[in-house]
Amino acid sequence: MAAGDKNIVIVGGGFAGLNAAQELRRAPVNVTLVDRSNHHLFQPLLYQVASAALNPSDIAVPIRRVLRRQANTTVLLADVRGVDAERREVRTSEGPIAYDALIVACGATHSYFGNDQWAAHAPGLKSLDDATDIRSRVLFAFEEAEREAEDEARGAWLTFVVVGAGPTGVELAGALAEIAFRVLVHDFRRFDPRSARVLLLEGSDRVLPPYSAASSTSAREQLEALGVEVRVGAMVADVDEHGVTLADGERIPARTVLWAAGVQASSLGSSLPAERDRAGRVRVADDLSLTAAPEIFVVGDMCRFDQDGAAVPGVAPAAIQSGRHAARNALRRVQGQPTLPFRYVDKGSLATIGRARAVAEVGGMRLSGLIAWIAWLAIHIFFLIGFRNRVLVIFEWAWAYVTQQRGIRLITGDVAARVRRHGVGRRD
Amino acid sequence: MAAGDKNIVIVGGGFAGLNAAQELRRAPVNVTLVDRSNHHLFQPLLYQVASAALNPSDIAVPIRRVLRRQANTTVLLADVRGVDAERREVRTSEGPIAYDALIVACGATHSYFGNDQWAAHAPGLKSLDDATDIRSRVLFAFEEAEREAEDEARGAWLTFVVVGAGPTGVELAGALAEIAFRVLVHDFRRFDPRSARVLLLEGSDRVLPPYSAASSTSAREQLEALGVEVRVGAMVADVDEHGVTLADGERIPARTVLWAAGVQASSLGSSLPAERDRAGRVRVADDLSLTAAPEIFVVGDMCRFDQDGAAVPGVAPAAIQSGRHAARNALRRVQGQPTLPFRYVDKGSLATIGRARAVAEVGGMRLSGLIAWIAWLAIHIFFLIGFRNRVLVIFEWAWAYVTQQRGIRLITGDVAARVRRHGVGRRD
Repeated sequence: MAAGDKNIVIVGGGFAGLNAAQELRRAPVNVTLVDRSNHHLFQPLLYQVASAALNPSDIAVPIRRVLRRQANTTVLLADVRGVDAERREVRTSEGPIAYDALIVACGATHSYFGNDQWAAHAPGLKSLDDATDIRSRVLFAFEEAEREAEDEARGAWLTFVVVGAGPTGVELAGALAEIAFRVLVHDFRRFDPRSARVLLLEGSDRVLPPYSAASSTSAREQLEALGVEVRVGAMVADVDEHGVTLADGERIPARTVLWAAGVQASSLGSSLPAERDRAGRVRVADDLSLTAAPEIFVVGDMCRFDQDGAAVPGVAPAAIQSGRHAARNALRRVQGQPTLPFRYVDKGSLATIGRARAVAEVGGMRLSGLIAWIAWLAIHIFFLIGFRNRVLVIFEWAWAYVTQQRGIRLITGDVAARVRRHGVGRRD
Repeated sequence: MAAGDKNIVIVGGGFAGLNAAQELRRAPVNVTLVDRSNHHLFQPLLYQVASAALNPSDIAVPIRRVLRRQANTTVLLADVRGVDAERREVRTSEGPIAYDALIVACGATHSYFGNDQWAAHAPGLKSLDDATDIRSRVLFAFEEAEREAEDEARGAWLTFVVVGAGPTGVELAGALAEIAFRVLVHDFRRFDPRSARVLLLEGSDRVLPPYSAASSTSAREQLEALGVEVRVGAMVADVDEHGVTLADGERIPARTVLWAAGVQASSLGSSLPAERDRAGRVRVADDLSLTAAPEIFVVGDMCRFDQDGAAVPGVAPAAIQSGRHAARNALRRVQGQPTLPFRYVDKGSLATIGRARAVAEVGGMRLSGLIAWIAWLAIHIFFLIGFRNRVLVIFEWAWAYVTQQRGIRLITGDVAARVRRHGVGRRD
């Protein structure tokens, strides 16, 4: 059988899956990429959609548009339900797809640590629909405050709690503070948006736990300068429609709670013949394949790969590198060549906090403030897919910087439908 | 009582309501604008959101952002349920609002002529959520076609029917033809998007019925040059999940049917003490007030105003002019001055068909093709609210013109959720 008859199937069109497909663009194999979404998402900027700064389409591109010139590749919209490693088939909502080599790159979702009932009151941020829902909820809370006559009830609408101070939580809290304290200042008649509170709760003893202590301290200072109340060592015991209860019994009345705490690898891992760690990540061999099924590779946020005594982190560069490496190994495998071991190259870490505020760690260097923020802007623009998106994001950022406004203050979807059905104020 | 104690309430933040509020910006009265949506929508470009050419935020601005410097005006997000003309109160989801003068500007929605069960299979286009839903459905149909092995079933996914050849129907059909025959040409492996069919059904004997016969003929020729199949005298007898049945018994298998046929004025008119015409429009006196309640003014698409033997049409310029005039009259009324009669000034009509294709009628002049299209572009850019939106729309249009691409090909919301829940192909 010629190599051209071999099928490499990729599940997932995130950073790992899309890069795997692109790595195979000239390979003499049939490539099929399956995703349940029609678009690749630039996840590091998703919080900017949630905070009304960017449009969904600025950070998302149709997967088939990206791969349109790649004649060996078919893109399919389908929900993958499991992998049958015996029969070498992926089971999807649209029927089975046979493979000679498989690359699994389904990413991770947020985890409520066994409290899934919190999801309704504390939405997380993983998809475009999550982001536009959070945008609608945040804007809606200010609308509700304009209507509410009673001080205590208004206070709960004007309290925004972000749970988890990893990069996403820090970025969200900073963006919320900017909305309340700068963007909306002139827009209401019955209250001052500057009376809003933004709380960032973190269970461990500092913000941005994976960063150095110095970056962590700097991030906290920058958040507090923006007006965010940072609480470390704050464990959440309960979340409901009216607020958050902490493990020490303190009650925080808040109508808007956002979840940026836990991460859980895709449940597709449970159908693979391999061990998983506590976060659901699939343990892989040094070539990113499964020991029990060497034609299956697992990459990106879904894989547990230890290097120098620590797990490779769930960040975009690791997803890109592992996706590309697995693609080369999958090709070697179907061509009968030995696979090669993977090695992650750490290019550094960056988190933004607000306008002209950020922290960065590159090599041994630590940056903060304006310089870190400029580095953050440049890198994110560079890695965005598509010239069109780069132009639009630069325009939106320049516009927001100069006017201190947010261009995309739209209440749409379920939140808007709720106003039409029930009026404001009722969430259920 | 000083004029500063008088309350003018405006219901609706469309062209009529927003212009009424702006007309009162320096008036010594309290103005309250109530809408169930937080944004003003530039409706003439809504079909461009539905066809993936523009972002929702390009054509929508938060109402309170537009009115933020207008200190006499409060904006409230609420659903208006009725008007109590006796007590001079508007009943809303958030409680009653008292008025001394009331301007009702709730617009119109699509009408299925008593067949509301068609709504699920043939969505109409009135809100941003309608537009993103239609966008998702259209893109999803092509995804489904890529998966479908069977020719007949694939044909139904690749058949797009637009019912109604008024300006919205003509614009939608032209945009669908461009998507199928130009935008998606290289993106699929298992079928040629150029095999798609776009049908435009019109019950009367020509497209764009309100235009002159010459413009109508020109529009039809331009549509057919784009690849649209135009059927006049085609009455729809039934619509279901699998297609359309015409009154003459012909069955058109089609999985995507869009409704651009009927228009019905807001049902809020039924709570007003006035007669309504067959389309639900409220008959007003020559000063736009109600004879039985002269402190209530009805404007825009909701009002029936006859001039020179014909009803003023439901177009944006009529909404703007009537909204402004009603605001001046409402102010005169609360100040104890006599009101003035309204007169609509027809500035002409414009409809676009596709890239470099349009028809226009200005004064006695008829334009078509490129010149009409350039006039259409210029006027729509000019009337868009906000410098930011103008810049972005110019960029998107220039980008689309040069690349023949659509920037916003995202499947989101309910259609995306359906893929996750059920897989592709099941609509129920």
